[in-house]
Amino acid sequence: MTIKRKAKKHSKKAGLPPGTLVHIGEKKTEKVRITLIDYTEQDFQERTVDNIEECFPFKETPSITWINIDGLHQIETIEKIGRHFELHPLILEDILNTGQRPKHEDYEKYLFTVLKMLSYRDENQCIQSEQVSLILGKNVVISFQEAVGDVFEQIRDRIRHAKGRIRKMSADYLAYALIDAIVDNYFVILERLGEQVEFIEEELITKPTEKTLQQIHGIKQELLFLRKSVWPLRELTSNLEKTESPLIMDATKPYLRDVYDHTIQIIDTVESFRDMVSGMLDIYLSSISNRMNAVMKVLTIIATIFIPLTFIAGIYGMNFKGMPELEWKWGYPIVLIVMAVVGITMLIYFKRKKWL
Amino acid sequence: MTIKRKAKKHSKKAGLPPGTLVHIGEKKTEKVRITLIDYTEQDFQERTVDNIEECFPFKETPSITWINIDGLHQIETIEKIGRHFELHPLILEDILNTGQRPKHEDYEKYLFTVLKMLSYRDENQCIQSEQVSLILGKNVVISFQEAVGDVFEQIRDRIRHAKGRIRKMSADYLAYALIDAIVDNYFVILERLGEQVEFIEEELITKPTEKTLQQIHGIKQELLFLRKSVWPLRELTSNLEKTESPLIMDATKPYLRDVYDHTIQIIDTVESFRDMVSGMLDIYLSSISNRMNAVMKVLTIIATIFIPLTFIAGIYGMNFKGMPELEWKWGYPIVLIVMAVVGITMLIYFKRKKWL
Amino acid sequence: MTIKRKAKKHSKKAGLPPGTLVHIGEKKTEKVRITLIDYTEQDFQERTVDNIEECFPFKETPSITWINIDGLHQIETIEKIGRHFELHPLILEDILNTGQRPKHEDYEKYLFTVLKMLSYRDENQCIQSEQVSLILGKNVVISFQEAVGDVFEQIRDRIRHAKGRIRKMSADYLAYALIDAIVDNYFVILERLGEQVEFIEEELITKPTEKTLQQIHGIKQELLFLRKSVWPLRELTSNLEKTESPLIMDATKPYLRDVYDHTIQIIDTVESFRDMVSGMLDIYLSSISNRMNAVMKVLTIIATIFIPLTFIAGIYGMNFKGMPELEWKWGYPIVLIVMAVVGITMLIYFKRKKWL
Amino acid sequence: MTIKRKAKKHSKKAGLPPGTLVHIGEKKTEKVRITLIDYTEQDFQERTVDNIEECFPFKETPSITWINIDGLHQIETIEKIGRHFELHPLILEDILNTGQRPKHEDYEKYLFTVLKMLSYRDENQCIQSEQVSLILGKNVVISFQEAVGDVFEQIRDRIRHAKGRIRKMSADYLAYALIDAIVDNYFVILERLGEQVEFIEEELITKPTEKTLQQIHGIKQELLFLRKSVWPLRELTSNLEKTESPLIMDATKPYLRDVYDHTIQIIDTVESFRDMVSGMLDIYLSSISNRMNAVMKVLTIIATIFIPLTFIAGIYGMNFKGMPELEWKWGYPIVLIVMAVVGITMLIYFKRKKWL
Amino acid sequence: MTIKRKAKKHSKKAGLPPGTLVHIGEKKTEKVRITLIDYTEQDFQERTVDNIEECFPFKETPSITWINIDGLHQIETIEKIGRHFELHPLILEDILNTGQRPKHEDYEKYLFTVLKMLSYRDENQCIQSEQVSLILGKNVVISFQEAVGDVFEQIRDRIRHAKGRIRKMSADYLAYALIDAIVDNYFVILERLGEQVEFIEEELITKPTEKTLQQIHGIKQELLFLRKSVWPLRELTSNLEKTESPLIMDATKPYLRDVYDHTIQIIDTVESFRDMVSGMLDIYLSSISNRMNAVMKVLTIIATIFIPLTFIAGIYGMNFKGMPELEWKWGYPIVLIVMAVVGITMLIYFKRKKWL
Repeated sequence: MTIKRKAKKHSKKAGLPPGTLVHIGEKKTEKVRITLIDYTEQDFQERTVDNIEECFPFKETPSITWINIDGLHQIETIEKIGRHFELHPLILEDILNTGQRPKHEDYEKYLFTVLKMLSYRDENQCIQSEQVSLILGKNVVISFQEAVGDVFEQIRDRIRHAKGRIRKMSADYLAYALIDAIVDNYFVILERLGEQVEFIEEELITKPTEKTLQQIHGIKQELLFLRKSVWPLRELTSNLEKTESPLIMDATKPYLRDVYDHTIQIIDTVESFRDMVSGMLDIYLSSISNRMNAVMKVLTIIATIFIPLTFIAGIYGMNFKGMPELEWKWGYPIVLIVMAVVGITMLIYFKRKKWL
Repeated sequence: MTIKRKAKKHSKKAGLPPGTLVHIGEKKTEKVRITLIDYTEQDFQERTVDNIEECFPFKETPSITWINIDGLHQIETIEKIGRHFELHPLILEDILNTGQRPKHEDYEKYLFTVLKMLSYRDENQCIQSEQVSLILGKNVVISFQEAVGDVFEQIRDRIRHAKGRIRKMSADYLAYALIDAIVDNYFVILERLGEQVEFIEEELITKPTEKTLQQIHGIKQELLFLRKSVWPLRELTSNLEKTESPLIMDATKPYLRDVYDHTIQIIDTVESFRDMVSGMLDIYLSSISNRMNAVMKVLTIIATIFIPLTFIAGIYGMNFKGMPELEWKWGYPIVLIVMAVVGITMLIYFKRKKWL
Repeated sequence: MTIKRKAKKHSKKAGLPPGTLVHIGEKKTEKVRITLIDYTEQDFQERTVDNIEECFPFKETPSITWINIDGLHQIETIEKIGRHFELHPLILEDILNTGQRPKHEDYEKYLFTVLKMLSYRDENQCIQSEQVSLILGKNVVISFQEAVGDVFEQIRDRIRHAKGRIRKMSADYLAYALIDAIVDNYFVILERLGEQVEFIEEELITKPTEKTLQQIHGIKQELLFLRKSVWPLRELTSNLEKTESPLIMDATKPYLRDVYDHTIQIIDTVESFRDMVSGMLDIYLSSISNRMNAVMKVLTIIATIFIPLTFIAGIYGMNFKGMPELEWKWGYPIVLIVMAVVGITMLIYFKRKKWL
Repeated sequence: MTIKRKAKKHSKKAGLPPGTLVHIGEKKTEKVRITLIDYTEQDFQERTVDNIEECFPFKETPSITWINIDGLHQIETIEKIGRHFELHPLILEDILNTGQRPKHEDYEKYLFTVLKMLSYRDENQCIQSEQVSLILGKNVVISFQEAVGDVFEQIRDRIRHAKGRIRKMSADYLAYALIDAIVDNYFVILERLGEQVEFIEEELITKPTEKTLQQIHGIKQELLFLRKSVWPLRELTSNLEKTESPLIMDATKPYLRDVYDHTIQIIDTVESFRDMVSGMLDIYLSSISNRMNAVMKVLTIIATIFIPLTFIAGIYGMNFKGMPELEWKWGYPIVLIVMAVVGITMLIYFKRKKWL
Repeated sequence: MTIKRKAKKHSKKAGLPPGTLVHIGEKKTEKVRITLIDYTEQDFQERTVDNIEECFPFKETPSITWINIDGLHQIETIEKIGRHFELHPLILEDILNTGQRPKHEDYEKYLFTVLKMLSYRDENQCIQSEQVSLILGKNVVISFQEAVGDVFEQIRDRIRHAKGRIRKMSADYLAYALIDAIVDNYFVILERLGEQVEFIEEELITKPTEKTLQQIHGIKQELLFLRKSVWPLRELTSNLEKTESPLIMDATKPYLRDVYDHTIQIIDTVESFRDMVSGMLDIYLSSISNRMNAVMKVLTIIATIFIPLTFIAGIYGMNFKGMPELEWKWGYPIVLIVMAVVGITMLIYFKRKKWL
């Protein structure tokens, strides 16, 4: 599992006037897809529109309208939305700058929220991060995504088939539902990470290799990345819950508190994973030391037993004239016995030292 | 002592509408057990009911009613309670989701508290974690547990036999008593951990082995787990104490402050255990280094003494023609003496270096 | 210097109704000693009473009364005090539970303070920790200690001989004086620790041994223990200073601020000791590495010089027929010279590498 | 990439009366350059003035005036500005003392801001830090820089050609634009650092050398330096955003919040770089251990195989009389076979131990 | 550079009544020197007085009076000041107790400030710490120092020659000037430390020795010591700035804010020195590992090349009868060639492994 980091060059914008609309992110060539869902408790319609202008009449209707834009590379579309819904130029800039930090801002007439939607792609085993911006106005929610494909399918289903309370609630509940879907998806990522952590932990105890170290390092980087996405989320959801904007109904507040609780839980889990991983590094390092120790012991035992013996053999390999032992009848067996005694003494010594 | 981690798949719920009741936790097949205790200062009745509806008439009576549900897998029972006591759907969701973080919430008409009940099972030497949810309404306390078996037996006894002040106090005191029983049980766990820490510490000084490292690692994980349960408890009890809900009488407040003090004490102990364990790791690592050092010294002493001596023997093992020493009468003894001198000199050198 | 840890089994109480009076601490058989000191600016009396009831008449008098109870194992004594002075049952519980965390609580009619009195016992070189509970009522101070023997002797002297302003001040000044005496005694402990730290530091530089590591570890545990007693003290004294209870006169406030300053100073010192000790551990570990390095160098030098020389000797120890060098007249001296050259070259190499 | 640290001797000033104007920083001999830009929505003029007095008449006009001073070594110029615009002597001191910490101060009639302008110089691959002080008065902005050359060129362009909204806004927007340009430039530095971090990370995995360690150390110092500049920036921008000075229009506030968001993002990035770099150090150290381990293994394998074999050869090199094996016909081949068996046994042992 | 730690025995005071005047610090025998400076914008007088009573008449005059006492060992002098200026007994105690923590207290009629004056003594290369206590009353400043010699000479000069605004301002400005002089002097210390840090860093890269480790340790202790003096300073200056005492004029506030900024800057520098030093320790430890690695490599190369060769030589040194190779004509040269091939093969292997 790796993180697909996108090269986000914030520096491209350095020096440009604020509010200049420049799309910072992967350039795409596919067409921007705009989908419109409009519903009341009774009615429901859903369609893909070619032109953003088709959505504008819905602004005035009392029904709840959800405009979803997949793709940020058609700046004129974003500009048109901005003009029609009277959005502050800085908001448009933030929507386009996909290196944005998750945040929540209250512009009185509408609320603006930026989040990171993480998703796990099985095909290339990586965490995909995508920026989602939400505008919550009166009876309208506009969501901006970097590309087609999201975690909102079940929400669409709930709207289509009037499942749960979503059709009975106001626009803020829809915004909540979108945020909740994004946050819930973090748990999926966390479970994958949890499995990885357990896998590495097991490997660490059975057969730690140099690859294990790289895996530990890899998971550490992923946790760092997750943490950077998750901590601002806490502030965001906390602000949302405490907001006094009339756009947020009282009935929605407990739901927002629930999302807040979830982010706390995610942070808790990320932090305890971090603790576990750093514990694993300690284990790894000391298991290296332990193995080194084992290697050293073998070397020492062999060397310290045989070096003195070889010395004794060396002595009787000397060519001196007057070496009486060499002439003795039992000289050779005696030397062999002496060697055996020396060797066994050493073995006993090592046994006592608990090196064997 | 190990932690029995239950696979809690929060991700199962990702995308479902909020308030959807799905039981997240170990699936059980046994019947849900519902017990009802109803008491005033004078009267008392206790019974196991088959059907949750039997409890509902007690809602209106001025007597204090404690409904305890053991088992969360019959969703319809939870739903009925929710409808009858007008609980928010998110509360029902939280009760069923056993991966919940301990928390306290004020819904005006009732207070909602989620806790982790830890208990030490002697049979398999593990810490068992179970989620307990409490609803405190007017004259009524409803408690939800994951399974039969809890730490409340003494409270039931106190109610049965009118021990202490419990029968004279209101429902909030009962809720306090339940929370207090759970928190008090943490001390039992801490004492077991304390014994383990002391045991490992002793082992570390007398004979550290590779198993010691694994034990240190194990206890570290357990402390991590405890910590994750205990820190939110602090916030929970602090909120409880500071609450201005009319459901909490002034007379109960000092008791809640007492629980708060206990959680602080638990946190203190967990944190100092953590400090101790991390100190133990340092000791372990440096004792490995020390032993390595000892091994190296022996190797060095043996090798540095015998390698030069073997070299001398090697010289006189050469087959050159003109080696006058070989012909000397005292050649052999002289060489032996020279070797002894070299060896002893080295020993003295090592003695001085304090390697012996 | 070691800490005499008393086995304090909080778990004994798990499940009992709150306010149940159980003495948690070392069981003692000696009689509880009750001393009574009663004074006004003019008068003074001091006596040891057998029966706590003898003290009760003093409650109503305008003179200042100090009742000191040495020993907590006679529960009925504590109960009688509780009833007579109308103390909350939780206070009595806290007084008896000697594993209490230092804290300060305001019960309107009286203030309740729990502290740890540390004292250094020369006879067995250990820090003794004893719990002291103080009740400050109108014109009365009741102090509870675990055993006979305390740091209050000088205060008694000041009262007896009307030294300082103590006889002119109200009961809160007496309570302050007791707390101040306890806090001041922490400095004595800190100085002992300071001496130890300096001693170990010196040892570390001159001759670090494995025992040094154990001493560092020991002092670390002691600092951990001190820290756990000292940090809550800060909160306690801060609460005391900021209290708005009418029991604390304005004239006493600067003195309380002074105690607060002292606790800050104690914390500062404990924290910098901790920093110093952790620095010492680093030094220790790297001095081990350094020594290992030195050992390795000697081994390497000896081995790398003699192994090649032994090899040369080995060559001319071979028994081949056609080895012309063996027949040469100057063969032997030439080989010796070659060996010397090889050896010296290596020495020069090591010199350059700064290994010698 | 290195940091060009300028020797800033704050100590030069120790003891001087506050408000004494001493330029602390690199002494320069070039002339101080003063540029004046004055504009309304319709008009615009820009000129370089020789004498600061030429700028003073613009103070009274309703048009917006930007006075930029490049060079701090002409103290009299600074003094004249101070007198004319009635600046507090401490402000003048702060402007001249280029070792200032970034800060924002509200002097009612004007706002004072000090920042560090970081820029990356390609010619010598280093980060250049320069102090920029801003005075925001009614319709006037005065900026002080240490030297010619800045990151404001694009702002001048926007004013010249009336790009964006700058010509329509008040002086506070100009001040914001200057701060924003400086903050935006931090992203450029961060990207360079990011590239370096990635480069080192790659090197670390493919071929870590001792130089890698020095690079890690170097980048760590740079991050330390950045951090010291960036953290006060957060406070500064936060103060700016929350200021209630009438000099800051409501319309400018969202822009200031935007700058604040950027500084948070910069801090986040710096902190995660720090985490990554410290992770890299761990990897480096354990890769050293791993390589040491590999070296040790080779030594051990060679030594433990050949030392016993050499010993066997040594035995049959002895010159004893009665060594029957020497006379055996198959003695030599048998010994060779024994040696091979010993060697192969050891190889199998190492294989099993996973040392090969 | 070392810290001259004075043995300050706070424990001497344990148990004494608060307000007991005991001088804690180095005992001195020299006479206490009292200097008096009295000035208005027009007049100025300065003299050394023998008797503190001579200063008392100046208390009533509208001119600003600065009484400076060098030496704390004449308790009666301090007592007289206390009585005359109606100082709280705890203040007198704090002045005499030179182990005081820097702090600021508001006693309504006067403000009390304790600081540490650090100065660098060239003669013995050490940081000298001295406690300075300041009393700011109406039109009067009293300063207490431990010994003759301070950093106030330039302030006296400014008063004498009416330099700067000091003669025009009120007494609080004088107090500010004294504090500012002390704080400014910290920068001198920091620069010395900075030089040391750079020196050690250089040494670390070129030739790290065991002494380097001790220097790192030494500088770490010094930073610890500085930190302990500097952090309370922050609180002190922050309190001073925010005080609402009528003794502090509004005109002085910006100056106090300036001092506060300086202390923040000092803290920043101390903290980044700490970070640098801890980074240096890492470098040191890994350079030790690196060198160990290098030593091991040489040993391994020499040993692994020659051990097998020696074994071959050993084989042909055996005295077996039937060793056909020994009889071969080219036996000897062939063996030499085999040896060379083995040796060169190994060298190539090491080359590939990048050990050479």
